[in-house]
Amino acid sequence: MSSWGNAVKISIFGESHGKAIGVVIDGLPAGEPISMEEVCIQMARRAPGRDKAATPRLEKDFPEILSGMMNDTTTGAPLCAVIQNTNTRSQDYGNLLCSPRPAHADYTGSIRYSGFNDIRGGGHFSGRLTAPLVFAGAVCRQILERRGIKIAAHIASVGSIEDERFNSVSIPDDLLDRLSGAVFGLIDQSREESMRDLIEQCRLSQDSIGGTIECAVVGFPAGAGSPMFDGIENRIASIVFGIPAVKGIEFGSGFAGASLRGSQNNDAFYYDGDTVRTRTNNHGGILGGISSGMPIIFRVAVKPTPSISRVQQTVSLADKTNTTLEIKGRHDPCIAVRAVPVIEAAAAVAAVNILAEVNKL
Amino acid sequence: MSSWGNAVKISIFGESHGKAIGVVIDGLPAGEPISMEEVCIQMARRAPGRDKAATPRLEKDFPEILSGMMNDTTTGAPLCAVIQNTNTRSQDYGNLLCSPRPAHADYTGSIRYSGFNDIRGGGHFSGRLTAPLVFAGAVCRQILERRGIKIAAHIASVGSIEDERFNSVSIPDDLLDRLSGAVFGLIDQSREESMRDLIEQCRLSQDSIGGTIECAVVGFPAGAGSPMFDGIENRIASIVFGIPAVKGIEFGSGFAGASLRGSQNNDAFYYDGDTVRTRTNNHGGILGGISSGMPIIFRVAVKPTPSISRVQQTVSLADKTNTTLEIKGRHDPCIAVRAVPVIEAAAAVAAVNILAEVNKL
Amino acid sequence: MSSWGNAVKISIFGESHGKAIGVVIDGLPAGEPISMEEVCIQMARRAPGRDKAATPRLEKDFPEILSGMMNDTTTGAPLCAVIQNTNTRSQDYGNLLCSPRPAHADYTGSIRYSGFNDIRGGGHFSGRLTAPLVFAGAVCRQILERRGIKIAAHIASVGSIEDERFNSVSIPDDLLDRLSGAVFGLIDQSREESMRDLIEQCRLSQDSIGGTIECAVVGFPAGAGSPMFDGIENRIASIVFGIPAVKGIEFGSGFAGASLRGSQNNDAFYYDGDTVRTRTNNHGGILGGISSGMPIIFRVAVKPTPSISRVQQTVSLADKTNTTLEIKGRHDPCIAVRAVPVIEAAAAVAAVNILAEVNKL
Amino acid sequence: MSSWGNAVKISIFGESHGKAIGVVIDGLPAGEPISMEEVCIQMARRAPGRDKAATPRLEKDFPEILSGMMNDTTTGAPLCAVIQNTNTRSQDYGNLLCSPRPAHADYTGSIRYSGFNDIRGGGHFSGRLTAPLVFAGAVCRQILERRGIKIAAHIASVGSIEDERFNSVSIPDDLLDRLSGAVFGLIDQSREESMRDLIEQCRLSQDSIGGTIECAVVGFPAGAGSPMFDGIENRIASIVFGIPAVKGIEFGSGFAGASLRGSQNNDAFYYDGDTVRTRTNNHGGILGGISSGMPIIFRVAVKPTPSISRVQQTVSLADKTNTTLEIKGRHDPCIAVRAVPVIEAAAAVAAVNILAEVNKL
Repeated sequence: MSSWGNAVKISIFGESHGKAIGVVIDGLPAGEPISMEEVCIQMARRAPGRDKAATPRLEKDFPEILSGMMNDTTTGAPLCAVIQNTNTRSQDYGNLLCSPRPAHADYTGSIRYSGFNDIRGGGHFSGRLTAPLVFAGAVCRQILERRGIKIAAHIASVGSIEDERFNSVSIPDDLLDRLSGAVFGLIDQSREESMRDLIEQCRLSQDSIGGTIECAVVGFPAGAGSPMFDGIENRIASIVFGIPAVKGIEFGSGFAGASLRGSQNNDAFYYDGDTVRTRTNNHGGILGGISSGMPIIFRVAVKPTPSISRVQQTVSLADKTNTTLEIKGRHDPCIAVRAVPVIEAAAAVAAVNILAEVNKL
Repeated sequence: MSSWGNAVKISIFGESHGKAIGVVIDGLPAGEPISMEEVCIQMARRAPGRDKAATPRLEKDFPEILSGMMNDTTTGAPLCAVIQNTNTRSQDYGNLLCSPRPAHADYTGSIRYSGFNDIRGGGHFSGRLTAPLVFAGAVCRQILERRGIKIAAHIASVGSIEDERFNSVSIPDDLLDRLSGAVFGLIDQSREESMRDLIEQCRLSQDSIGGTIECAVVGFPAGAGSPMFDGIENRIASIVFGIPAVKGIEFGSGFAGASLRGSQNNDAFYYDGDTVRTRTNNHGGILGGISSGMPIIFRVAVKPTPSISRVQQTVSLADKTNTTLEIKGRHDPCIAVRAVPVIEAAAAVAAVNILAEVNKL
Repeated sequence: MSSWGNAVKISIFGESHGKAIGVVIDGLPAGEPISMEEVCIQMARRAPGRDKAATPRLEKDFPEILSGMMNDTTTGAPLCAVIQNTNTRSQDYGNLLCSPRPAHADYTGSIRYSGFNDIRGGGHFSGRLTAPLVFAGAVCRQILERRGIKIAAHIASVGSIEDERFNSVSIPDDLLDRLSGAVFGLIDQSREESMRDLIEQCRLSQDSIGGTIECAVVGFPAGAGSPMFDGIENRIASIVFGIPAVKGIEFGSGFAGASLRGSQNNDAFYYDGDTVRTRTNNHGGILGGISSGMPIIFRVAVKPTPSISRVQQTVSLADKTNTTLEIKGRHDPCIAVRAVPVIEAAAAVAAVNILAEVNKL
Repeated sequence: MSSWGNAVKISIFGESHGKAIGVVIDGLPAGEPISMEEVCIQMARRAPGRDKAATPRLEKDFPEILSGMMNDTTTGAPLCAVIQNTNTRSQDYGNLLCSPRPAHADYTGSIRYSGFNDIRGGGHFSGRLTAPLVFAGAVCRQILERRGIKIAAHIASVGSIEDERFNSVSIPDDLLDRLSGAVFGLIDQSREESMRDLIEQCRLSQDSIGGTIECAVVGFPAGAGSPMFDGIENRIASIVFGIPAVKGIEFGSGFAGASLRGSQNNDAFYYDGDTVRTRTNNHGGILGGISSGMPIIFRVAVKPTPSISRVQQTVSLADKTNTTLEIKGRHDPCIAVRAVPVIEAAAAVAAVNILAEVNKL
């Protein structure tokens, strides 16, 4: 299913080369002013063609609001936004039905849907379906910002080139603001050039490259979330793995913490005025599934773009024989770059839902 | 909330030092014979005191079936199993209410539940709550095995000592069988001694150590799962993060894959007889949220046991001052060891639910 | 929330005088051919202006499919259909914000949404929101008919004028076919004139009238549904009460059965060839929440149209004083007539969801 | 499934002649003192053998709390209560497996669960499963009463003998208090004798009798609930149809309202001091799925007890022949009497869930 959430639910629809894509957001609080300008800023960050590191396919991803808003303010009714599909070149995808692209959902989708799924452009599995998620996140982040909660992510690595990490106990406001508007978001901007070089080099060699993204939710109040299966980690993971190409997630010290000792990984509590804080933030702002008031920090692994133009080995499902495939079409050599605002959006939707559940919105 | 699942739902209840803990499993197929002997084997793997690497606290974790089974066969009605709590030493936990243990849920839980949560032994946040999950998994894995699906996990690392990885395209049956009954499960058993030494050394230095676990689901049919938010990764992540101390999860090549090129990470399809398979398995058996028929492979990061006997810095919530804490009681120095069967159990519950949703059970 | 269902989910959006209304249907089986012509026949039955017993407001309720269909066949991805709003006269509704209409949701909606709800035309509470439900039902009933399941409803009463009841043990196919295309569906068509006369008389006296609807689901296989809260009655009731103006539902002998003796109300089983059937059908095809294979029969109570043109007593929320209200605009004097295809649609969506849950679709 | 609710969830388990029955309640607010004495008063109202109008089977329905309470106060963790099954005479039910009882779930259950369901005493379909629901309701009503919300129901009719109806605009506190502790609850107590006579007469003639129940939720705040599928009617109906033998529900004027004119059925608003109220309450406290602040009023139809001792016609599933059946065992001749506290309990659980969803608890 393509719906997510409890107190605030999103239901995403659309196929890459169908008529339109979009999202229904149900359960939003009424009376929230939403700036469509800010929404469009977020949409533009994800949109292709803004950046040479991304695909040249041009989209006009202007969302049309069908319901749930009046006078730029939420009404409390389900908010539906639709984005038309234009400028699609379906002929590029002709032979995929029989010859599934490696590392794509062509094969698994055809089994799941008995071959009736719309394979053009990846259909419902397409990265394009992250546009409605970014829309939903752009709405949610305005609701959060009004309550002092900021969300920002950056490219933590491209291939083996790493950005700095967030200082997880204290992230400056201006960094958050800069990143949440950035197209190629880095803490240490001096690393942009080498990352872009690597991406360009992959493109030129008909290849692609993976990356990681680090995301912070700052100002999130303590005491939200739940033990066991409705914890904050569970919620964020369950929405983030809905983003194509994400193959891993870790919170706080994550996998690195798994090689530490308790005396290294435990975060000491202390009073900062009247507020309980921790000296370090290896717990990533979450203990027992519940927020501690420290920044929520997580990182995700984004696999290299599966669509590369090299000849690849695959099968012909029609003939039941092995064959080769040469993918045409236009593709980002590094999904991770454009996935940054998508990860932020997913975090924003998750945060609004989690807060709504415990009446802290 | 402490419930999980759609087509098959589990609802876990209990507090570490309350009267009992247990689980309700709803939606199981009727007519499934369940061997209680096999259930107890799984329960015993998780139970403390079986192994010197684990806590000496003794539990008799024999589950009592209250409903849903007749003549050792599922009736289709909700299956409830209860495990009595015995041998609890509540006096060990007296001062935690005011002085939250670092890296525990004491502080976040007290905010979430306004101080009314049962803090003894971690209450509902306790690792003991994984016993009912292991029970549910032990029931589900029998249903899966009857359909040719096997689940096994091993200790992938303790601190910086690593086990071998699964050969993710082909895992021998006898390895799966050995691991799924093991108490200290390793692929390369020669590494057990050094791992145990490290754990013992941590214990002696009043410290603890983290670890990672790798899990495989073999024989899972292609075409199960869904795109976006109900994908297999989403589902497994959302249940696995319900296990205390898990702070990260990755599927297939995961975080390592994020530094690879597409030409390295893409898995070529080929026909093996009539079956579509992949030459490598960097996708971890999942593409677009849907199973490919290849083994499902994931790894989780388990943080070091937060309860260490060293003096630690914390706060006094009563006095609003900084203070120190010395945790008494008995604790595993390495949670990852006992978490192995818990991870398998979570995977089994997830697998049954995912298959039930698409009528493949 | 405006979403419903588990295995098959619908999410309805829109406000009466907003830009558009619509529905996302998720979880439909892939590969189902859908005739848009048949969909439009169902939409037309509900649409106003087709019948003098209904409001003269003209709508072009042609649904536009945005996703989930290719070559008139379901792809398995979420199906989104949108219906544009046109021909709305918002100025008719100016004073409702302050003076809530009796028996409408104006008052309760303004409390629930702090006055931010779009009150024009009833907003999200409008009967117009049943159009997307009819769309969803029109899709689902084609899937059901392909499996031998037919759904039909009729006007069981208008005021105190009653139609015949279904012969609940055996409903002829041609009656089902006639009713499922009818605009003023009656078993005994000779009663249409008197019903229409009564409705016209109510209109002329600036009044409205209530009615009841009886619905049958025929050919539904035995053994679907669940005990307790996921029973067929629960499911049908939970969707049917989503239709504005419905205030009651009963299954089989329902309220009348509550004054019977067991010896009168119990339905004797017998073999009809190899099929178990019942001599009578007071159980309405459902026992213990599960289908018996007999026709599922239920009746709903539809209140009189709340919008009447007489002067009515209400309050001024702005002034906190009592006042009077004269509703302008165009309104059906008898909602029950146009609600017939909506009830069928709700039953169709419920039936598809219930069958999908138990793998009987 | 046997679970219900969103913000507050119940999961009921057990079979009539299994080891135990019970319920897990998840999502309750922490810090709510719960009087077990008051819980037992509610349990006793439902328990059989208290009243000659009910079955002589004796049960000791004392619930044992396994989790979620400490010092008689909710901890916020899932609350599990278990009731042991004792005094069951399984031999009475020997032949039902082959010969399903008319109007029972024996036949539909055996199809649904392929004959593996526990048929003894009705198994999971048994009216005994309402005991955990009454427990859950008894907990929830204490939470509600602390917030000024009272729930009471009465026997509105037995066969054709009717009690008075609630004055739906104003129900005296002392009536609510009397009814919510009553075993044979009537507004006009003078009608008890004739009702009891009718029930006894049915018993003597080896027959049974249906009835209706009217329930009021008083003090429920305005503005809770939601449009469409999460409305108050949807929620109450979806839980109430989980009670065996319920075949109909109506809110406010319900089916009677369906024969009224709008001018009769519309409820005029007026200010009573600062509070908006309605002069009449045909809307049953709910408009557009949302509470108006007026008493929530609904009535349910309870069918006559299906188990009657007369010879009845049924089938032999083993032989595929028609046969007859003589039910032995002890059965209430009028389920409606004991169902009164169950209906109240269902309303209490629904009310707590609805309020929790909109942060009004």
